[in-house]
Amino acid sequence: MENITSLNSPHIERVKALTGPRGKKNRETESAFIAEGIQTVREALTSKLIAGLAVKHVYVTESGLLKLQQEISSANLEKYELIMVSDQVMTAMADSESPQGIIALCSSKSMKLSDLWASKPNKIAYFWQIQDPGNAGTVIRTADACGFDAVVFSSDSVDIFNPKTVRSTVGSLWHIPAVTDVNIDEFINQAGVNNLPLYALTGEGEESFNSSFVSRVSKQPSGWLFGNEARGLPTLPSELVKVAIPMKGFAESLNVASAAAIVLHSVGLY
Amino acid sequence: MENITSLNSPHIERVKALTGPRGKKNRETESAFIAEGIQTVREALTSKLIAGLAVKHVYVTESGLLKLQQEISSANLEKYELIMVSDQVMTAMADSESPQGIIALCSSKSMKLSDLWASKPNKIAYFWQIQDPGNAGTVIRTADACGFDAVVFSSDSVDIFNPKTVRSTVGSLWHIPAVTDVNIDEFINQAGVNNLPLYALTGEGEESFNSSFVSRVSKQPSGWLFGNEARGLPTLPSELVKVAIPMKGFAESLNVASAAAIVLHSVGLY
Repeated sequence: MENITSLNSPHIERVKALTGPRGKKNRETESAFIAEGIQTVREALTSKLIAGLAVKHVYVTESGLLKLQQEISSANLEKYELIMVSDQVMTAMADSESPQGIIALCSSKSMKLSDLWASKPNKIAYFWQIQDPGNAGTVIRTADACGFDAVVFSSDSVDIFNPKTVRSTVGSLWHIPAVTDVNIDEFINQAGVNNLPLYALTGEGEESFNSSFVSRVSKQPSGWLFGNEARGLPTLPSELVKVAIPMKGFAESLNVASAAAIVLHSVGLY
Repeated sequence: MENITSLNSPHIERVKALTGPRGKKNRETESAFIAEGIQTVREALTSKLIAGLAVKHVYVTESGLLKLQQEISSANLEKYELIMVSDQVMTAMADSESPQGIIALCSSKSMKLSDLWASKPNKIAYFWQIQDPGNAGTVIRTADACGFDAVVFSSDSVDIFNPKTVRSTVGSLWHIPAVTDVNIDEFINQAGVNNLPLYALTGEGEESFNSSFVSRVSKQPSGWLFGNEARGLPTLPSELVKVAIPMKGFAESLNVASAAAIVLHSVGLY
């Protein structure tokens, strides 16, 4: 087993290249990304649901290895290439401020939209130009927890393989497929072809997202569209049903991940 | 009207002292904080609901002033001291990466717990050791949108007057009172004295947060307890009702702000 103690190791540069300021470009070029922390890496090593998100190897400190061994059977762990690193090297590699001693280098692959339709999804959520990395990760986690089949992101959304998004999914990245770079017009067209009713969350919907609406639409398959943090959704075809979440108080709107939590939980758990 | 163009102006130092690395201490010492951006500052200038969150003065660029004048009547705007600053000075002052040309220096004051009880609240939410500034702001925004009467934060929670939290409330900081530094045992005791039933959100609740539970408890006043992002809630008295949000899929838990959105919307909008 390798044991890296030098702060000049090319492994540090390799990891930082995937999480640093030019990380997005490097992640795309290499089809690779970094997962940090015990919970996230455990899910990466043990979940078998998402094709293409394979773990290439795992960097661990001595204490990180102990944590992994407590969470994963040794038979399972033996399948992966573990590279021991010193605490100093881990600190140099890590993106988070308090590294947990475990970093996985993974290959990245998004599901294709055609594969999503082929899977005959029952409930999916589409996010248009979502910008905040934490929001993107949180909606993947929420969609997982609410039994949704997939999350779709528009072009010009934040890169879901950036370290903050991966961390915010807390492992759900390995539980539920994500389709990225999907143009909203194309998505709406293909949903029509595939007979999936769509509902767009907007501030002024013709429908109110209340319990009678939820009970009416939740039994059928459905797709739910959410907009950008500041601008909401773009102008949509008039035949697409617009839905507003009822509100009290003085807030003009909800955070997009909060709105998604309300909608996905009602629709998914109904 | 003052017009600040020098990058050596003490005003820059004053603003940065309230948002920088030692910001928390300075905010406490001065009972002051910074609000940035048109939407947030507009709410600070026009909302009259929260005692003690007064605007001391507003720094604006020329384009920032135009934006403010579009949003707020000149009679309302004349009540405040406006300080003109150059674009360069604004960039030096601002905490956000793309400043909108408007920064308000505000006095900070939390509501006292005794004043909260005196207001006979119908619905309140309590957050124990919430750590992420974005989560703290988001739950204030959600509580506002769901018609809750107040948000309470435990000691050892993130400072709600830090710039990221203020920004994440998108003005709701001026719509709904926040009580800070409240010990959980004290909160539970005082809720008992004030006849407010409490419900604690935990992974393994004896009650499931489903529609029949919601319809049973929502008509009465209630308080809802949420825990830390990683550790959840501490051990609680056995007589306190524990409630779990039902989940599907493979996620172990929800983000605390997502969980709060599901609960506060169901309870507040029932």
